[in-house]
Amino acid sequence: MILTVTLNAALDVTYPVASLVPHSTHRVESPSARAGGKGVNVARVLHGAGEPVLATGLAGGVTGALIRADLRTAGVPEAMVYLAGESRRTVAVVAADTGDATLFNEPGPRVSDAEWAAFLAAYDDLAGRADVVVCSGSLPPGVATDAYAELVTRAGDVPVIVDASGPSLVAAAAAGAALLKPNLPEAVATTGQQDPVVAGRTLRDHGADAVVVSAGADGLVAVTRDGSWRATPPAPLPGNPTGAGDASVAALAAGLRTGIDWPARLCAAVAWSAGAVAAPLAGDVDATTRDRTADAVRIKEIDAPHTDR
Amino acid sequence: MILTVTLNAALDVTYPVASLVPHSTHRVESPSARAGGKGVNVARVLHGAGEPVLATGLAGGVTGALIRADLRTAGVPEAMVYLAGESRRTVAVVAADTGDATLFNEPGPRVSDAEWAAFLAAYDDLAGRADVVVCSGSLPPGVATDAYAELVTRAGDVPVIVDASGPSLVAAAAAGAALLKPNLPEAVATTGQQDPVVAGRTLRDHGADAVVVSAGADGLVAVTRDGSWRATPPAPLPGNPTGAGDASVAALAAGLRTGIDWPARLCAAVAWSAGAVAAPLAGDVDATTRDRTADAVRIKEIDAPHTDR
Repeated sequence: MILTVTLNAALDVTYPVASLVPHSTHRVESPSARAGGKGVNVARVLHGAGEPVLATGLAGGVTGALIRADLRTAGVPEAMVYLAGESRRTVAVVAADTGDATLFNEPGPRVSDAEWAAFLAAYDDLAGRADVVVCSGSLPPGVATDAYAELVTRAGDVPVIVDASGPSLVAAAAAGAALLKPNLPEAVATTGQQDPVVAGRTLRDHGADAVVVSAGADGLVAVTRDGSWRATPPAPLPGNPTGAGDASVAALAAGLRTGIDWPARLCAAVAWSAGAVAAPLAGDVDATTRDRTADAVRIKEIDAPHTDR
Repeated sequence: MILTVTLNAALDVTYPVASLVPHSTHRVESPSARAGGKGVNVARVLHGAGEPVLATGLAGGVTGALIRADLRTAGVPEAMVYLAGESRRTVAVVAADTGDATLFNEPGPRVSDAEWAAFLAAYDDLAGRADVVVCSGSLPPGVATDAYAELVTRAGDVPVIVDASGPSLVAAAAAGAALLKPNLPEAVATTGQQDPVVAGRTLRDHGADAVVVSAGADGLVAVTRDGSWRATPPAPLPGNPTGAGDASVAALAAGLRTGIDWPARLCAAVAWSAGAVAAPLAGDVDATTRDRTADAVRIKEIDAPHTDR
């Protein structure tokens, strides 16, 4: 089972409008809402692919209850831990005239020391039963920067994938994360290195077993103990890039669980990501696009010297 | 007691942002939420002014529970009737750089025939104990256009104020509403008449006892059986006009209940409205601005012939 951890789960609300006109009033005829947060999206993709998954994390208040209810409706097994505070909402205003989204992200509830302790107790049990743990997304107020590092340590021999940025990512590397999966802007901001290969090596040198840097339509760069690769999709795709990174994390988690080799994992990660771009909602993957992309991903080994550890 | 009716109560959410940039992501550090809908705002203003008030209407789901909880926190007595559907939210994105708000209004839940019947049963009891009834705002899906007319009829001898627009307003007039309070764009859209005096007379001819048309910084025009007046504030005020109309309705309801003469009612309506513009949130009134304005409102009788009924 793959355990996803979403410490700042959200109710993702979508407001479709004809056009976004600042300083005017918009009637939103058909608002929609679904459980979100990066780890929840990963869980949804894995469930859609038939992988055994369990979604944990923190969800609070009536919004937290709506998040859990939506996961159950979607059939995604969940073991979210209760918070007293209200979980956050995100609002995406999607304008029909441009096809673009304007996002408003609430910060999330403050997590008390007692609530964090309760989560850790639940996590120790769940991680002990997992094949792979995936930690994704921002940390809510009240949770320490080294929270993901602590989750890596407490998982023991169970490999942990971390999709985060900044000090939180570096600390998770130092704790021995199996895989870091920042996107390129996050990798650059965290390491100060502009090149994805150099940034990936820098992050791996902090102690992670492998690093995959995602660069949108340019694909992925992987730096691992077995070698380094660049995986490129056949062509840029029109669509909604929200959730594409989460789909690639889901593929990498599934590949880590089954133990397929790195080129196969990277091929799946690029394909699932392309399928996510072609699907309108984060957490969904268009199977036709995924399968067509999988046949056309270019995998190239990077033969420049890399750190041997 | 003044009974306010809010058939499409809302949770009004405010997202303060530094600047609204379409197609970008905004971190909202301090979101806030309070019970809203025009009738709820009227109730809040009346409660703040020390007037006896009871807020009824329709509120559903977890959002409805939040609306009721917020009213109780504010000390506003409420007897909202339960709906199975989720009450709507409104989101106001307030940009610090311009001071302007961009609004997103959800439509509200569909009201079933059984829910409407349950509301009417509750309304008959509450209206029978009221001195004045105030019906404000849009109708939710599933409620007939003549809903306010039905509430006017069922109130019998209890005077009913209606703040609405279109066919709903005309039907309420024909049912014998004590007072219609459209704003000028609503009065123009409903009657096809551009002049507020002519529009007011046209609406009154449908059967209402009196009509007050609000024209923002230009003040109010009243067309009544006792005469017609124009009431003008001393100067345009900077601030948030949301809720200014609701504050004027609250003053008109209080004046109708105590039976003060029309010039005094209109003076209070302009002053409370100015106080609402000076307060940041709909439903609040800045007392200093209100009292200073009350001393400076100009009331002018309109001596052109008006309909005698």
